[in-house]
Amino acid sequence: MFTASELGVFDLLLESGEPLSSDAIAARLGTSTTGMERLLDACVGLKLLAVELTKEGALYRNTEISNIYLTKSSPKSQYHIMMYYSNTVYLCWHYLADAVREGRNQYERVFGISSEDPFGAMYRSEEEMLKFMAGQNSVWSICGRDVLAAFDLSPFRQICDLGGGGGALARECVSLYPNSTVTIYDLPKVVQVAKEQFIPPEEHRITFHEGDFFNNSIPEAELYILSKILHDWDDDNCRQLLAKVYKACKPDGDPDVILISAWLEQQNVRGGRPRRRSTGWRTAQLD
Amino acid sequence: MFTASELGVFDLLLESGEPLSSDAIAARLGTSTTGMERLLDACVGLKLLAVELTKEGALYRNTEISNIYLTKSSPKSQYHIMMYYSNTVYLCWHYLADAVREGRNQYERVFGISSEDPFGAMYRSEEEMLKFMAGQNSVWSICGRDVLAAFDLSPFRQICDLGGGGGALARECVSLYPNSTVTIYDLPKVVQVAKEQFIPPEEHRITFHEGDFFNNSIPEAELYILSKILHDWDDDNCRQLLAKVYKACKPDGDPDVILISAWLEQQNVRGGRPRRRSTGWRTAQLD
Repeated sequence: MFTASELGVFDLLLESGEPLSSDAIAARLGTSTTGMERLLDACVGLKLLAVELTKEGALYRNTEISNIYLTKSSPKSQYHIMMYYSNTVYLCWHYLADAVREGRNQYERVFGISSEDPFGAMYRSEEEMLKFMAGQNSVWSICGRDVLAAFDLSPFRQICDLGGGGGALARECVSLYPNSTVTIYDLPKVVQVAKEQFIPPEEHRITFHEGDFFNNSIPEAELYILSKILHDWDDDNCRQLLAKVYKACKPDGDPDVILISAWLEQQNVRGGRPRRRSTGWRTAQLD
Repeated sequence: MFTASELGVFDLLLESGEPLSSDAIAARLGTSTTGMERLLDACVGLKLLAVELTKEGALYRNTEISNIYLTKSSPKSQYHIMMYYSNTVYLCWHYLADAVREGRNQYERVFGISSEDPFGAMYRSEEEMLKFMAGQNSVWSICGRDVLAAFDLSPFRQICDLGGGGGALARECVSLYPNSTVTIYDLPKVVQVAKEQFIPPEEHRITFHEGDFFNNSIPEAELYILSKILHDWDDDNCRQLLAKVYKACKPDGDPDVILISAWLEQQNVRGGRPRRRSTGWRTAQLD
C-alpha cells in the first residue's frame, strides 16, 4: 500500500478514468514492468485494486476505498500520513529489540537525534516537518469533525488549539462553529509552515501564536484543545502543562479543556499492580 | 515474534520450567521492564505466549507452538531463519518502491553489494553466511523429511546435493535412506562452515565437493538434488546448470534430478499474456 501510494498508482488510475494494463501503468510511472505487475497483483490481493480480464489483457482499476483514502487529491486522502509511517515510523521498527532493551524510542539510532526529544526527530528538516504536519492533517480529515461534534462547542468564541500544527482541526472547528475563532499555538517554525502551506490568509477566524508551551506563556482563551499532545510526554510534563492551562484560562469562567489522546488505561490485574494498556483514541472534556 | 526471539524470551521461559513475571523476565534478560511488559503483552495477543493472573501478578509462559518453533534448542527451531529474515530480508522491504522502479532486488542499497550477485550479499561475512546456512537448516527441520519421502529414493546410492549448504537435507536423506551417500556440493567457504558447524565428522555417509556449479565441473552421481537453487537464477543460468547436470550424470543410467523450488506457475489469463505467480514450494522429480 505504501509503495503503490508513493509511486502514484492510485492517483494515475483515478486520473485516467479507465482501467489500465500493468504495462501502461509502468510506462506512465516510469517503473519496471515486472516489478509493477507484481505490485499491482499484490494490491489486488489486498483489495486496494480490482483487476478485470479483457481481450487486451488484465486491466487494473482502483477500488472505492482506494479512491477515497489513497489518492492524493481526495478530501479524505491518507497519502501524507502513509508517507510519514513508511519513511519515518517504520524505520524505527527495525530497532525494536533495542527499544525493549533500553525502554525508549530509537530516534537516536535511526535519525541521530536524542530520544528525549521526539519533535527534534519529527522536525529534523523542513521536509520532515511538512510531512508530519500534512500527515496529522490527513488524520483529521477523517475524524476531526466527529471529534469536534462530540460536544456542543458553540458557546465558545475564543478557542486555543495547543500544538495545533497544520491546522486541520482548527479549520474543522471554524467550519462547524462559525462564530468561533481558533488560535493555533505551536513552535515558530511550525506556525510559519502552517501559514504558508495549510491555512489560507483569507481565513480570518484562525490566528496564530508562536511559542513553546513548556517554556513560554500561553494566551487566554475560553476553551483549550490539547489534541494528541499529552501522550507524547511523561506525567511530570503533562501536569506542568495542564497547570499552565488552568492558570491561563479566562478568570471569569471555568477552564474548559478538550483532551484528545491515545489513552493509556489503568487496568487492575487481579492481585497484580496496575498495568497500562493503550486502548485507542479517546476524547474527554474536562470542566 | 522476531524481537522476543532475539531477546531470548522463549528460551528463558522454556528453561525456567515455570511461568515468570514480566519483571523477572526483564531482569534475567537485561532489558527495560516497561519495554519487556509491552513486548510480552504483544506476544500474548499473537498467541506466542499465554498469561496467567495470579496473586503474585501476571505470569507468562510459552504456548505449545512457541516451545516447538521459537526456542533455540527445539529440533524444529525456526530461530535462525527468523533472525535471517529479521536482520537481512526485512531491511530490503524499506526499498520496495526502488525495487519496483528498477525491477531488481535492493541488495546494493542495503548492503552495498551488486544486486546481480544474491549470494555476495548473503555471504558478505562469515557471520552472515552462518546465519543464512543455519536458517536454511531450520526450514529443512520442518519439511525436509516429507520432501525426501515424497519419492522412493532408496534405489539411489550416490546422491549429489548441488548447493547443499548447511547439509540439513543431506542429513535427513542419509537418515531416511541409510544405504545412500550424499555429496554436498557448494562454494569452498560454505563447505568449510558446513564441516565445522553442521556435519559431525563421524557422519561418513556425507562427503563434500568444493566448487561453483556455474564455473566448475560437478561430480558424477545417480541422483542430483537442486533444492532452492533454480529460483535464484534467470532462465539462461538455469538452462546452463541443468545441461551440466545432464552431462555429468552417470552414463549408464538416466539422469535423475529432484527439483525443490519456489515455483513460478505459468497461468494463462483469458485473452491476456501468460502471467507468473509464485504458488509456494513444489517438488518435482525429473526422469
